[in-house]
Amino acid sequence: MGELGEFGLIALVNAGRTQTSGVLLGPGDDAAVIAAPEGRFVVTTDMLVQDRHFRVDWSSPQEIGRKAIAQNAADVVAMGAVPSAFVVGLGCPADTPVEFVRALADGMWAEAGRAGASIAGGDMVRSPLIIISVTAFGDPRRAPIKLSGARPGDVVAVAGPLGHSGGGLAVLSAGSAELTAEFAEMVAAHRVPQPPYEAVLELPDTVEVTALTDVSDGLLADLGHIAESSGVAIDLDSAALSDPALEAVGKALGVSPLDWILAGGEDHAFAATFADSGDLPDGWVRVGAVRAGSGVTVDGTARTGPAGWESFA
Amino acid sequence: MGELGEFGLIALVNAGRTQTSGVLLGPGDDAAVIAAPEGRFVVTTDMLVQDRHFRVDWSSPQEIGRKAIAQNAADVVAMGAVPSAFVVGLGCPADTPVEFVRALADGMWAEAGRAGASIAGGDMVRSPLIIISVTAFGDPRRAPIKLSGARPGDVVAVAGPLGHSGGGLAVLSAGSAELTAEFAEMVAAHRVPQPPYEAVLELPDTVEVTALTDVSDGLLADLGHIAESSGVAIDLDSAALSDPALEAVGKALGVSPLDWILAGGEDHAFAATFADSGDLPDGWVRVGAVRAGSGVTVDGTARTGPAGWESFA
Repeated sequence: MGELGEFGLIALVNAGRTQTSGVLLGPGDDAAVIAAPEGRFVVTTDMLVQDRHFRVDWSSPQEIGRKAIAQNAADVVAMGAVPSAFVVGLGCPADTPVEFVRALADGMWAEAGRAGASIAGGDMVRSPLIIISVTAFGDPRRAPIKLSGARPGDVVAVAGPLGHSGGGLAVLSAGSAELTAEFAEMVAAHRVPQPPYEAVLELPDTVEVTALTDVSDGLLADLGHIAESSGVAIDLDSAALSDPALEAVGKALGVSPLDWILAGGEDHAFAATFADSGDLPDGWVRVGAVRAGSGVTVDGTARTGPAGWESFA
Repeated sequence: MGELGEFGLIALVNAGRTQTSGVLLGPGDDAAVIAAPEGRFVVTTDMLVQDRHFRVDWSSPQEIGRKAIAQNAADVVAMGAVPSAFVVGLGCPADTPVEFVRALADGMWAEAGRAGASIAGGDMVRSPLIIISVTAFGDPRRAPIKLSGARPGDVVAVAGPLGHSGGGLAVLSAGSAELTAEFAEMVAAHRVPQPPYEAVLELPDTVEVTALTDVSDGLLADLGHIAESSGVAIDLDSAALSDPALEAVGKALGVSPLDWILAGGEDHAFAATFADSGDLPDGWVRVGAVRAGSGVTVDGTARTGPAGWESFA
């Protein structure tokens, strides 16, 4: 990268890209300009640190780029907003191959496209290890869906698989090429989460979502935020959460897959509470209920053990 | 920091802060919500890496925080936009003292306040060294002032001191406590740049600014971006750039201060081109002229030597 220099690199990662129409001014000036047709925008940011949030021997640069964008897009969608643009700060050692950076950018653009948006700008700096900082924007087409609106009597539901990323991480950690091949789908889910954006973005206006989040830290931890913000209790039904695809992995590794489902995190599925009015919308599965009280229980019982990812634990 | 955990830390850095009215939803949910009354917003992002962009033995955490916000606010203002909010990603070793983080946040909030905005959210992660990623937003109250609008015949002018940050860095690099005390003002300018936001934000509507940037990489480099984007040449007048305050520092270190003025960067002064219609607005000093052609010259001559900061040079 040292040979190309910062401006050469910026040209390289932007070559051949097409901005979506919400990006009114893209890279190349002091700042980008993004449309905010609703007169407001949602924003979220995440920092990913090499060997803490990703490993270059476990994931390709495309996969790392996709995951970095996916986890931020999921936060935007978890507000009920439509992704409009991303900006990316990238720190890399000077001897990072240019091909690595191009592939990372390819992965970012691919996932940005899946979310309906593009990458409007960024910053590239020298750093002793790879650091990726993504900031994502969205248009709130409805009132933002916050953590604080759940009420006793609501239904708790999820969209998208849970525990697959945790299962894939356990397979990778086991270090067996055989297991990695046998459970390739699970490993892929860890390398590139696929948040089911459409499950939220295509919710009919008539559906009353009272609280919404993406499952980034672990289901117990993330529903814990909803319970605490809303001043309610949540009880999960373990039978509704069980997943045959995970049972086989759990058996091979001698681990109960329920830990991955409840505390694995990084799946970037969505978890929501709905006013109880009969059928759930497409893509959503009922997994529990909102009660008066506080805390999150499973089958009526408080669970011991890890609740989810904690940055400084 | 390990003892407090991520959520304890988030509570700590947000305790006692008051969001400005443009922050419609602050920290605590999946994403923040920011007002964009013009139906669009400007956005810029910078990543700062410990020992590359700042040193904890040269600057206090307050100073590092102020500088991180100032350089991003300057980019927003350099589009002719009014800062509305910031989000901050912070990576730190687990043994970073909590007081360091609180002081860093204090510095960030102080400079955000000087720019008229607040810090709407962020992310905190563990990292082997300190990484600060700031993303800044602004309301473009007029059409964005781009790099590409300079025309032959325009006046080149600057607002704010140039070369003081470079002079201060040279003093710090000399490692003499005596010189650091003697030139304390210059050292302070390096530790905390003070972009003269008001020189841009209070420009009368009648003034025709054709191109605008902040001086982050160095005057020659930043005006080079204007010259290239606009397809023009810029000639600087070295006499208009001379600064008595820098002469004394230059003499003490045996260096020509013109290098700091032309290539020092990090002052976050503003450089602009104005349609030539007589007097310049308050706070602006004429330092050159736009001509037909290409490139940036000083007193009619191409300058050899460093043009400014290059991230991967």
